[in-house]
Amino acid sequence: MQSASHGEAFPVRTPAASHIFTTLLSHGPLTRPELARRTGLSAAAVTKAVRPLIESAYLVEDVAEEARPTLGRPANPVRVDGGRALFAGVKVTGDEVIGVLTDLCCRVCAARHMPLPARDPRAVLAAVAELVGALLIEADGLGVPVLGLGVAVSGDVDRVRGVVRYSPFLEWRGIPLAELAATTTGLPVTVDNDVRALTVAEQWFGGGVGLSNFAVVTVGAGIGCGIVVHGRVVAGAQGVAGEIGHVTIDPAGPLCHCGNRGCVEAIAGDAAILARIREATGVDVAGPTEAVDLARRGVPGAREAYARAGEAIGRALATVANLLGPERVIISGEGLAAYDLFAEQVRDAFAAAAFGSAARCDIQTRPLPFEEWARGAAAIAIQSFIRPSSDQTPTSAREHS
Amino acid sequence: MQSASHGEAFPVRTPAASHIFTTLLSHGPLTRPELARRTGLSAAAVTKAVRPLIESAYLVEDVAEEARPTLGRPANPVRVDGGRALFAGVKVTGDEVIGVLTDLCCRVCAARHMPLPARDPRAVLAAVAELVGALLIEADGLGVPVLGLGVAVSGDVDRVRGVVRYSPFLEWRGIPLAELAATTTGLPVTVDNDVRALTVAEQWFGGGVGLSNFAVVTVGAGIGCGIVVHGRVVAGAQGVAGEIGHVTIDPAGPLCHCGNRGCVEAIAGDAAILARIREATGVDVAGPTEAVDLARRGVPGAREAYARAGEAIGRALATVANLLGPERVIISGEGLAAYDLFAEQVRDAFAAAAFGSAARCDIQTRPLPFEEWARGAAAIAIQSFIRPSSDQTPTSAREHS
Repeated sequence: MQSASHGEAFPVRTPAASHIFTTLLSHGPLTRPELARRTGLSAAAVTKAVRPLIESAYLVEDVAEEARPTLGRPANPVRVDGGRALFAGVKVTGDEVIGVLTDLCCRVCAARHMPLPARDPRAVLAAVAELVGALLIEADGLGVPVLGLGVAVSGDVDRVRGVVRYSPFLEWRGIPLAELAATTTGLPVTVDNDVRALTVAEQWFGGGVGLSNFAVVTVGAGIGCGIVVHGRVVAGAQGVAGEIGHVTIDPAGPLCHCGNRGCVEAIAGDAAILARIREATGVDVAGPTEAVDLARRGVPGAREAYARAGEAIGRALATVANLLGPERVIISGEGLAAYDLFAEQVRDAFAAAAFGSAARCDIQTRPLPFEEWARGAAAIAIQSFIRPSSDQTPTSAREHS
Repeated sequence: MQSASHGEAFPVRTPAASHIFTTLLSHGPLTRPELARRTGLSAAAVTKAVRPLIESAYLVEDVAEEARPTLGRPANPVRVDGGRALFAGVKVTGDEVIGVLTDLCCRVCAARHMPLPARDPRAVLAAVAELVGALLIEADGLGVPVLGLGVAVSGDVDRVRGVVRYSPFLEWRGIPLAELAATTTGLPVTVDNDVRALTVAEQWFGGGVGLSNFAVVTVGAGIGCGIVVHGRVVAGAQGVAGEIGHVTIDPAGPLCHCGNRGCVEAIAGDAAILARIREATGVDVAGPTEAVDLARRGVPGAREAYARAGEAIGRALATVANLLGPERVIISGEGLAAYDLFAEQVRDAFAAAAFGSAARCDIQTRPLPFEEWARGAAAIAIQSFIRPSSDQTPTSAREHS
């Protein structure tokens, strides 16, 4: 763990510098005038923010290879120096921890998996520490400092305080994960809800590039949602946001583990689909693979369970569209493996329930493996590293404008 | 209409100036250091933005009455000079137009009502022109220029293009209202959805002051919603947002005028409540007043219709809370007159369906008369006047940070 560099800070922790840096991360090399145009900042503000970032080698200026015939200084593009620093990202599932080492551009340099022997905080922390230890050895080989670790966990996570308030899959309540992981790894740690972390990666590098308003909906064991409004991931005043899995779809529907009836997750989550197939077919299906097989073979009760799940998901997407009018909704998650069994129902239910021009929302599917979720965890570590100091408080200074 | 001053522009149309100005509108006089603290801007940026606003008399500096014993320049508070300019705001309902004249601080100087003889665009525009004409005569008496008009209409309104795309109550489609009203009144015109306009007024002066994330839900003939996320009203990529009235509550519920089944509005809108009461009691109730009377007298079918409406509203509020985690939801609208008949059901259904800490959301009721909605219309005119020039495009330059 020797390569962990403690206390190295981003030199300009202002909203302008953060905005410029994430614009370069998403869009690649840009000249200063292009940066000013894309960020809406003045030329002077761009120049002022870029200078110390070049001096500290977080940004580099590509010098034009031949003299240009333009007047004045050549408009050299500026880009993030990916090799300047490394970050680690870990996604915790119920069965394993998945970790990646990324450069400052959030490009994956190394990936590692590790099974979880148990789900209690002690076991998970030990696995995270071992996984991060292996990634730090990789980083040592590259000779580049690791400046932060992001950990992504499903459930109600308070990023500002670094606490997992409630994770149903892990059965955790009130675990100060950031502090515990910082102690075991020696790195500055950011924790967040896993779907929100994935949404940051999608915003920077994936299906959300260039969009101010979009959502990522993940289907599988749970049904999750990351929402970007006004260019930023919605965290919720109490830390809860994007809980599309617990939107009520049918007040007469099945009981959900949250205590309510007819939640999306109680109809379209893996456990709900399996339970319904068992009930309808009498077959004691062991897991999603077997359930998908039954449905693909056309077994009526099995097909119907997926159709009903698709209808619930489509209606939930329409609720998001009616309330927020996103430009795009990206559907992902391990449940996409069965998407052929419910794509039509998602589309039809969405079209029926979307109001007016909200129906124009672009719905895409994107299979994103767990390495991509771990990359999202690295992205939140990078985000914390470059974030304006005023954003450390729950109410951002950039708001209320 | 002689007092309309054409082309007078806000002198500093930058995000910083707009942020400073709205902070002073909401919070009243503040010193420059207080402004820097509240906006997160640097002292230099505050000084730079404030100077031309003082020179052009939009802001005034209150000079300390007695010399203070502090070193350096006294920290004099700066405030908006309300008397510097006037704005007009008009709310269009199905039966009348309600107009207010406000000062630059959005304080109401005069209010007028006018019945609508018909709902076609020509009749509404004639009524708006007459109403605004009367307000401009008031402004002439004050000797202050009127710098803009805001018009608030229910339905799907494209503020950027100034077009009412679809208003079910008015039965309008694709009406370029901003252009038409500018021609008839001679003022720069901003149009927006009425609930979103009301939400701006609530954010600046009402139940949303100091909050980055809140929602206004209006109940009555329609069920509407204005949503503030990251300090700004959500407009939706296609212009549709906050359509809480068309969130599906019960897939087996009554048919809605939008074509879907079981929408909130199809259960909790005035027409739905009346229809249900007629069906359940056999009484041909003429309107909400008679319906409320029946329910207050304990007539079973009538009470049950309100109870069911309350349950639908409570569940819809939980959907908003689960997806966005607002700090507060403000319930308003003419339907509040019957709130005693469904308050308990709203509360219970919300508590049952809110997920985890989303249930901590503060739910308030605030009766806001139509003058307050017209004030919201004036607020959007002020907002357009002080808005950064980069914000005129649909995708704001301040986003993607």
